[in-house]
Amino acid sequence: MLTKIRIPIIIVNFKTYSQATGKKAVKLAKIAEKVSLETEVCIGLAPQFVDITPVANAVSLPVFAQHIDTIKPGSFTGHVLAESVKETGAVGTLINHSERRLKLADIDATIARTREVNLTSVVCTATAALSANVAELKPDMIAVEPPELIGTGIPVAKAKPEVVTGAVKVVKQNNPDVVVLCGAGLTKGEDVAAALRLGTEGVLVASGIVKTKDPYKVLLDFAENVTRK
Amino acid sequence: MLTKIRIPIIIVNFKTYSQATGKKAVKLAKIAEKVSLETEVCIGLAPQFVDITPVANAVSLPVFAQHIDTIKPGSFTGHVLAESVKETGAVGTLINHSERRLKLADIDATIARTREVNLTSVVCTATAALSANVAELKPDMIAVEPPELIGTGIPVAKAKPEVVTGAVKVVKQNNPDVVVLCGAGLTKGEDVAAALRLGTEGVLVASGIVKTKDPYKVLLDFAENVTRK
Amino acid sequence: MLTKIRIPIIIVNFKTYSQATGKKAVKLAKIAEKVSLETEVCIGLAPQFVDITPVANAVSLPVFAQHIDTIKPGSFTGHVLAESVKETGAVGTLINHSERRLKLADIDATIARTREVNLTSVVCTATAALSANVAELKPDMIAVEPPELIGTGIPVAKAKPEVVTGAVKVVKQNNPDVVVLCGAGLTKGEDVAAALRLGTEGVLVASGIVKTKDPYKVLLDFAENVTRK
Amino acid sequence: MLTKIRIPIIIVNFKTYSQATGKKAVKLAKIAEKVSLETEVCIGLAPQFVDITPVANAVSLPVFAQHIDTIKPGSFTGHVLAESVKETGAVGTLINHSERRLKLADIDATIARTREVNLTSVVCTATAALSANVAELKPDMIAVEPPELIGTGIPVAKAKPEVVTGAVKVVKQNNPDVVVLCGAGLTKGEDVAAALRLGTEGVLVASGIVKTKDPYKVLLDFAENVTRK
Repeated sequence: MLTKIRIPIIIVNFKTYSQATGKKAVKLAKIAEKVSLETEVCIGLAPQFVDITPVANAVSLPVFAQHIDTIKPGSFTGHVLAESVKETGAVGTLINHSERRLKLADIDATIARTREVNLTSVVCTATAALSANVAELKPDMIAVEPPELIGTGIPVAKAKPEVVTGAVKVVKQNNPDVVVLCGAGLTKGEDVAAALRLGTEGVLVASGIVKTKDPYKVLLDFAENVTRK
Repeated sequence: MLTKIRIPIIIVNFKTYSQATGKKAVKLAKIAEKVSLETEVCIGLAPQFVDITPVANAVSLPVFAQHIDTIKPGSFTGHVLAESVKETGAVGTLINHSERRLKLADIDATIARTREVNLTSVVCTATAALSANVAELKPDMIAVEPPELIGTGIPVAKAKPEVVTGAVKVVKQNNPDVVVLCGAGLTKGEDVAAALRLGTEGVLVASGIVKTKDPYKVLLDFAENVTRK
Repeated sequence: MLTKIRIPIIIVNFKTYSQATGKKAVKLAKIAEKVSLETEVCIGLAPQFVDITPVANAVSLPVFAQHIDTIKPGSFTGHVLAESVKETGAVGTLINHSERRLKLADIDATIARTREVNLTSVVCTATAALSANVAELKPDMIAVEPPELIGTGIPVAKAKPEVVTGAVKVVKQNNPDVVVLCGAGLTKGEDVAAALRLGTEGVLVASGIVKTKDPYKVLLDFAENVTRK
Repeated sequence: MLTKIRIPIIIVNFKTYSQATGKKAVKLAKIAEKVSLETEVCIGLAPQFVDITPVANAVSLPVFAQHIDTIKPGSFTGHVLAESVKETGAVGTLINHSERRLKLADIDATIARTREVNLTSVVCTATAALSANVAELKPDMIAVEPPELIGTGIPVAKAKPEVVTGAVKVVKQNNPDVVVLCGAGLTKGEDVAAALRLGTEGVLVASGIVKTKDPYKVLLDFAENVTRK
């Protein structure tokens, strides 16, 4: 049941951090599962491609790919197939992360692929205007992350609250069914609370959890601020 | 011991074929292991990223990624990290497959990454001249595959023997340590025998095995032609 | 005065057709100028990069680049700088043509560059949904062109009128200031009339003019159908 | 006659510097022509695409594109066609500059295009090994430029003489007909003399000429060091 996506959600992007690779990816996933069980907050995990299967096997949390390609089954060496991701037990995928930007036509085609195989789409955007833009393509979630704040420890909800509120406003206008997350610079539970107060329904976090000394403690702080809200 | 790369070698590229995805990838891997055990011919497997871990766990055969990125551990969402591939138990990677062509500078950087983490590099090329070219970068293996023959059932060793002999000649001149494979259009054991007679030390095959009705039978035919040589 | 963009507009994309390269580009531009003078219909020209200066020098019509890059003045070898295009006398640029698709973030950044140097932005899109999407980024014009019809001689206004009317509707809802053009498959004046009847304010045409035996005759037919509307 | 390429050669890459855009590109070209006439040293110019025609019309010096695409005449919006560059009067093109890196297969295809239209190919590389690599593809010239020195003012012939001598050695071994240039960090005539002493037959320079206060003076210093050699 924990593998089902619920709102609000904290999605942890493992990127290609050595602290979240291979066995360490599984270990981090188990810490997240513990926090999720204790707080009843939904925590999603986005490990590297090769770690999706071991992570999905190890824990009962919703697992996301960090990217999928637009291709269908066939002659595509070195690509990431939606069906293959689905078969691992993963439930969704990030799309258009600032470290993996896509052509507009490919964002559209990737969202279409997620619908075909029943994966949840989480499209990353940099600004309120781009969030409105992407909302027209009807993804399941949009995660607004000003790229210049990613990895800085300066939380978007403090540094650029207007980007977050702007994104929430325009996305909901265009398409009230789209869930809006925010990310970039989150390091403390209070950053999560601030994000939720601005109207988002969750956060996308990476280094703030993965690269901290005590991920359990920090993730617990994040989750408690979700429930406290 | 079977996971060690030995020459001659048959490498099976699973691409993103539905016949070689998820559970079917593991099943195909077990068929290949059976053939390898019966014939003592080295058979390498190149499954999709998400299937590398289950395949490497299921069989004792050398497993290859279909591609890795040039990036190092860090903030790179949606990329394929050499260290992560290595940790799965995989022993090597394809590079620059015709369905995943790379910038020249990135072929060079990818080979460097494989050396850093001790993976075997198998660089794909289209012509004899490009094989000579890539040999200068000192990869472990070069697989020459005229792209126009891939998936056609017309074996390169018959249709373009001069590409194969030319590649063997120029690669060995430039760098006698580089192993030369060939691929494209292989469907029968005799195609493998022909490839070896032209001086190659193995083959790279995809649809000829993956999409056939009886992969065990065809792969056995391939392997027997290796030992018979 | 003819170099000023007026609505309705016919924009002729010269692509890299040999019939519209070098001296032939200038010749075609003069034919277009003649038609524009005779009919008082605004005709824009989008020649290849190297032909922009000679074309802009030869005729008094609004000239467009086929693409610009997002870069600013500096160390960018082999890129297309907005300022350089502006200095030629060109007045605008195509963006995201189906033969030169861009990342979403780069469409946004390219539109921003056109504003900085005062060029008119014409963003190409494939569907009504993508048109709505791009309208959020506030370009000057959107040209909706189903890629599967480009070069076919099957006019979009007949084959897919719902794409055109859909695009007009959603674009104007999102942003009434954006001019909507349509393209793909146009070969006769009546195709232009049909496009205008569906609510567009002009057309983007390529092979229908460039590759025809008598461009003067066909372009005149296009222009007369604009005025007749 | 000055438009003919002679060895040794100084090629000035205008990049997208504002100091070498539009009218300023033509002005800089005339300065280069003056130096070439006074010293009888061959000076090549590589302006932006839109400035190729005005520069080629204004001076009698060999003009190069900064890049061309692999495409042939046809439906390729926003691409750079070899035939179009040729028709401007340009005599060659840079290929694979560190700011415009290409896929290996595309370097090969671009060199093939230059042969088809009789343009001189100047392929940029970063290291001696990559120079050997590219020499196998039989370009007309190779310009070795360690990217980390580009724009630094630290001349490659001083900072990394082994890269230059290594490149000259391996290129000439593989293909004695290929002309080797070097670049990166050149700011003074003595840097050119040093490059020639290491066995190169010319230099590729950008900011060292374009961004200097008195391009005439510095370029004259460059050219005099060529003749003095």
